[in-house]
Amino acid sequence: MTLAVDLNSDSGEAYGSWSMGDDETMMGIVSSANIACGYHAGDPSVMRATCTAAVAQGVAIGAHVAYPDLAGFGRRFMDMTATELTDAVIYQIGALQAVASMTGGQVTYCKPHGGLYNAIVHHEAQAQAVATALAELNRASGTNLSVLCLPNSEIERRAKDAGVEVFYEAFADRGYTPQGTLLSRRETGAVIHDPVQVAERVLRMVVDREVIAVDGNRVALEADSICVHGDTPGAVALAGAVRSKLEDTGVQVRAFSKGL
Amino acid sequence: MTLAVDLNSDSGEAYGSWSMGDDETMMGIVSSANIACGYHAGDPSVMRATCTAAVAQGVAIGAHVAYPDLAGFGRRFMDMTATELTDAVIYQIGALQAVASMTGGQVTYCKPHGGLYNAIVHHEAQAQAVATALAELNRASGTNLSVLCLPNSEIERRAKDAGVEVFYEAFADRGYTPQGTLLSRRETGAVIHDPVQVAERVLRMVVDREVIAVDGNRVALEADSICVHGDTPGAVALAGAVRSKLEDTGVQVRAFSKGL
Amino acid sequence: MTLAVDLNSDSGEAYGSWSMGDDETMMGIVSSANIACGYHAGDPSVMRATCTAAVAQGVAIGAHVAYPDLAGFGRRFMDMTATELTDAVIYQIGALQAVASMTGGQVTYCKPHGGLYNAIVHHEAQAQAVATALAELNRASGTNLSVLCLPNSEIERRAKDAGVEVFYEAFADRGYTPQGTLLSRRETGAVIHDPVQVAERVLRMVVDREVIAVDGNRVALEADSICVHGDTPGAVALAGAVRSKLEDTGVQVRAFSKGL
Amino acid sequence: MTLAVDLNSDSGEAYGSWSMGDDETMMGIVSSANIACGYHAGDPSVMRATCTAAVAQGVAIGAHVAYPDLAGFGRRFMDMTATELTDAVIYQIGALQAVASMTGGQVTYCKPHGGLYNAIVHHEAQAQAVATALAELNRASGTNLSVLCLPNSEIERRAKDAGVEVFYEAFADRGYTPQGTLLSRRETGAVIHDPVQVAERVLRMVVDREVIAVDGNRVALEADSICVHGDTPGAVALAGAVRSKLEDTGVQVRAFSKGL
Repeated sequence: MTLAVDLNSDSGEAYGSWSMGDDETMMGIVSSANIACGYHAGDPSVMRATCTAAVAQGVAIGAHVAYPDLAGFGRRFMDMTATELTDAVIYQIGALQAVASMTGGQVTYCKPHGGLYNAIVHHEAQAQAVATALAELNRASGTNLSVLCLPNSEIERRAKDAGVEVFYEAFADRGYTPQGTLLSRRETGAVIHDPVQVAERVLRMVVDREVIAVDGNRVALEADSICVHGDTPGAVALAGAVRSKLEDTGVQVRAFSKGL
Repeated sequence: MTLAVDLNSDSGEAYGSWSMGDDETMMGIVSSANIACGYHAGDPSVMRATCTAAVAQGVAIGAHVAYPDLAGFGRRFMDMTATELTDAVIYQIGALQAVASMTGGQVTYCKPHGGLYNAIVHHEAQAQAVATALAELNRASGTNLSVLCLPNSEIERRAKDAGVEVFYEAFADRGYTPQGTLLSRRETGAVIHDPVQVAERVLRMVVDREVIAVDGNRVALEADSICVHGDTPGAVALAGAVRSKLEDTGVQVRAFSKGL
Repeated sequence: MTLAVDLNSDSGEAYGSWSMGDDETMMGIVSSANIACGYHAGDPSVMRATCTAAVAQGVAIGAHVAYPDLAGFGRRFMDMTATELTDAVIYQIGALQAVASMTGGQVTYCKPHGGLYNAIVHHEAQAQAVATALAELNRASGTNLSVLCLPNSEIERRAKDAGVEVFYEAFADRGYTPQGTLLSRRETGAVIHDPVQVAERVLRMVVDREVIAVDGNRVALEADSICVHGDTPGAVALAGAVRSKLEDTGVQVRAFSKGL
Repeated sequence: MTLAVDLNSDSGEAYGSWSMGDDETMMGIVSSANIACGYHAGDPSVMRATCTAAVAQGVAIGAHVAYPDLAGFGRRFMDMTATELTDAVIYQIGALQAVASMTGGQVTYCKPHGGLYNAIVHHEAQAQAVATALAELNRASGTNLSVLCLPNSEIERRAKDAGVEVFYEAFADRGYTPQGTLLSRRETGAVIHDPVQVAERVLRMVVDREVIAVDGNRVALEADSICVHGDTPGAVALAGAVRSKLEDTGVQVRAFSKGL
């Protein structure tokens, strides 16, 4: 039996005259693209170009939904009500679905972005709001949108309860606590920059289903998809190193999500 | 054979804490609702509430697409490129489609708003951009989105050439030139405020397919749908007078657009 | 010696085609106008019209600074960094200062709005950010901008430490706890709607420097300014009742802030 | 007598997480910085950092006012009314004045950006609106804001009539017609990329007050300031070559505008 894992990356985060990352090259490395939907980044033309690139490379399209906050790049918590958030998620996914359809693609999953991603690890009302949006869309449109999220999170529980399929994400270049949670960015070792080391960590995540925590101990880790960043210095090199290491060891890189 | 005509009104033009018009009541009068998509008005929750009201009253849902200009309410011409505009129209329609599907409704037509509506009477590149957006969406999604527009306009020609169904719109309370075009708002007689007079003009449009121009002469007029305003003083009374007059004379009020 | 108090109201909260409240009439009742600066409401032309009305009535102009959130009307907490918030406050005040100067007016105080107002009662970093913005502006421009806020709040302490003059605000139509804090809007008695009762409560706040709490007991209360709402049903009537009651009892209504 | 000229560049065009150009380095080359004011680019923190860099290098601060169009980077014509535009210009300048004052700097001139810059070469109402904004601000605040613009333009005439000081701009890397106007970007020779050639052209503009037009003939040209771009590939090298050439030939590079 062949081992397989998904590689995902945030994509389409340019906006108007501003660029961000190197989507073209990243699309040759990852198997799933989290595409910004205009709320934290990504205008309609950027969305279309990004979907076109994803379809050309056979990369799965995910809705990278966010708080409405261009100035803050969606990274700042916003105390939206559950209703506001559900409707905003539906709006963004619908917009991306239409744009993706123009390019022959379709949206198969949703990965909340930035501040929203962090909030719904714990925030019950917002986690429920996202789960409700996906469940309602699936019911109304006959889609099977899944959610990509952290294991043991509020969004995981709410999504499962709402009948939304859940996939687990791990981070290629982030340090982990002995409890298996992400090390705060304020701590030493929070981000690992060496491509060789990162590639080896990812391989261990996939093959051994564990990670070496910051204290040196092994911690069990479930990951359907490994997040590689697309907008940091050296991002392409690091992502490429991860993919090569996986393929050289016989691990297949393929999307976790499926179309209709 | 029963005469029939559509009544349409701009709807869902509230935004956040700001209200606009009386959508609830208007939904009991019109047969088609042009629902704002977030670019000139309408946030996701307003869109959803408006779709819910439309579905409850059996009113057809149209995408009231616009320039991205909340501060100007979409009324100011913006020199968007054809590509930017096509993608922006697709984005807006997709967002409304998803929101409408939540409420059991579907988007069946598109009526460009304000500055864009006026521009594509003459502006070739922008008219083509809107026509292209609708044609591409129909092709990609199997929908049959039509466009509601002025007769003898650039958008009419471009839409027909692109294979998009076209419906003609006339205005209940606007004066017409002897050439059958709208009298400029700067001219005397540009807007008619008397509900009785307006209702009689609409009846003539529908039954006799003509309008009395500002010079007193009769001008031929093709109208599949009559626009009644929803946000002016006395809007509800005027729209109600139009509907009553039509029904009292045996003219059926029904949507021009059809679902899948 | 004549007793005096300030009446303040949120003003200039229209935006583009959307209206909010009745600024014209309220300007004849209040002595201080908290004018929106474009972040939660108020576009440049609305700001100018509102400043013009304030100057015409001799009403003091305050900067009603807010989070950048038109869709949420500035009511939703946003986790801005201290630096982002300081700079955003300076930006908004500067914009209002220039607009006010066009009308012969000047900005004499700042009242944070909505979500930001609530946050800086407790949020140390955001309270410090607002205090820093005002202190820096005063130092750089030779102004004497004060802040209008709740007593016993973090913003009070931070502003005083930064050398910014502080004035206390009480609410005409809100219920108070026995501890002198605002009763949560979820509790019975949180909002008082009867103009007679509201006017009597305000008189007691000013003359006796106390309020009857929700449990019937008297609580001491320091108030330099009484907030009357401008955008609720019956707002004008209620504000008018408050002003009449004060003046009939010999209490002068005048702005707490002073120009240069 | 020493020849002198100003070099200006668009600056502070980052926004939130998006960067644009290399302001730090450009500030060491130019003598005037056109700083974005949040409408087409530039958030409050970007504005502050850019003002700080300008002050540190002794570079004059200009308000780079624009249409409210982040998605279009202010490059698309917007049909704003004169009133809307005047108020929007005042708002932007006021915001920048406050931010600049924090850094020890002050705004000494205004250069309209992109679509607005192009529009007011011919558009009478919008040119008047910009001139009115500057004249009113100068009158109300005692400032002496000048405008940097194309010679023989509508804005030049309107500004002079309104009592606003006018300075002329030429473009280092653009081709000119035999009439002394800019060659359309669609024509061959519209943009010159060779730093040596560009530097020589600038020297000729300053020393001989002429430019070699696209047809090879010499055309008279009045220029108080030469615009060098900051956001194109090779921008820094080209601007540096211009400055070196000027200084090597004994031409002083200094700001055209003066503070109070």
